[in-house]
Amino acid sequence: MPVEHTDKRYEGDLKKLREDILYMGGLVEDQIQKAVNSLVDRDSPLAEMVIQRDHEVNRLDVEIDELCIHLLALHQPAGKDLRFITTGLKITTDLERIGDMAVNVCERALELNQEPRLKPYIDVPRMAKISERMIRESLDAFVREDTDLALKVCKDDDEVDQLNSQIFRETISFMIEDPHTVSRAMKISSVSKYLERIADHATNIAEMVIFMVKGKSIRHIKEIPQSI
Amino acid sequence: MPVEHTDKRYEGDLKKLREDILYMGGLVEDQIQKAVNSLVDRDSPLAEMVIQRDHEVNRLDVEIDELCIHLLALHQPAGKDLRFITTGLKITTDLERIGDMAVNVCERALELNQEPRLKPYIDVPRMAKISERMIRESLDAFVREDTDLALKVCKDDDEVDQLNSQIFRETISFMIEDPHTVSRAMKISSVSKYLERIADHATNIAEMVIFMVKGKSIRHIKEIPQSI
Repeated sequence: MPVEHTDKRYEGDLKKLREDILYMGGLVEDQIQKAVNSLVDRDSPLAEMVIQRDHEVNRLDVEIDELCIHLLALHQPAGKDLRFITTGLKITTDLERIGDMAVNVCERALELNQEPRLKPYIDVPRMAKISERMIRESLDAFVREDTDLALKVCKDDDEVDQLNSQIFRETISFMIEDPHTVSRAMKISSVSKYLERIADHATNIAEMVIFMVKGKSIRHIKEIPQSI
Repeated sequence: MPVEHTDKRYEGDLKKLREDILYMGGLVEDQIQKAVNSLVDRDSPLAEMVIQRDHEVNRLDVEIDELCIHLLALHQPAGKDLRFITTGLKITTDLERIGDMAVNVCERALELNQEPRLKPYIDVPRMAKISERMIRESLDAFVREDTDLALKVCKDDDEVDQLNSQIFRETISFMIEDPHTVSRAMKISSVSKYLERIADHATNIAEMVIFMVKGKSIRHIKEIPQSI
């Protein structure tokens, strides 16, 4: 086989990897949005739909893994491309687990939708919006190898953590004031934690992008640098 | 360089990868055990020690990743070895996050140790024991490519889930009976969830081992098969 042909196939496979990861990212973003809508709008059939659609997220996880292994086996990439593919392998795991978190939100929504509404949801959809943006931007940072955007994602995680703490304090107040609210408040607190974990996964992706591009780990640094 | 020499180096690198992953597994097991001890024995200096030692877990994560990338770049493995190495890349991420969960347990322990004890801890150390064993067995399954052992790990996860539900119900009862317990009960419930997530990570590793050996995904199958 002439080298040029192989090169074209290689470039095509790499392009497909980028596109597939972005597509999977778009799907899990939509899963989160619909999961939170199923809670806010008390729309249990929507929650069931999201739970059903998780198998598509899992299918993409397996498919993209296979594409990465195929790229490694067939083209034996080195340097930058090798790091890009190995990072891709890890990113799919994070995206798959974000999908699991969306399912968990739906499971709590199905329970909460059967009980009287405790309070209007304001901070939960706000957390979801930020988390979705963080996923989108972490994947954009990955395909563009943009460390500034990746750093922004790491910083945005603080906002989600603050909202989570706020919801935690609020649910505690509800429970102390009226024991009848305990079960519902615990479930809302769980939803908030699932969203916080989604933002953590996006942050993990962003950290891996920085490591891929710069070879520097910023994990567990207390102060996130302005630029690296 | 003669081929034989390269082969020896390759075998040596592969052996090191196996050993490093087992070592990292042993370290995170010890982190969990000490984290739970710091809670049960109200030993805050031990909790501080575990938090400090997390940087070693993170260092190993980076080192093992580098070893995997080195193995891929230098030796361009195929077939079984390629799948072994790409699985190794993913496993370190799970181990690193298990380390983070041990730190989270310590953070709650530091808070709980400053308040009167709510109840003796019985189910929490039991969950920790099972989770530690699950990590050990999932990594043994990985290095021995033992799918039966990996299946056992997946099944053991149910026991941890049941203990988590039991603790969840118990903490709810505490909160309903006496609002003064709300803050402590919520923290104990968080510890239980961290341990449940640790067991989930071990299950993820076991599932990846099955996929590595059999090329079959058992993720999200409701009934775990007796054998595959």
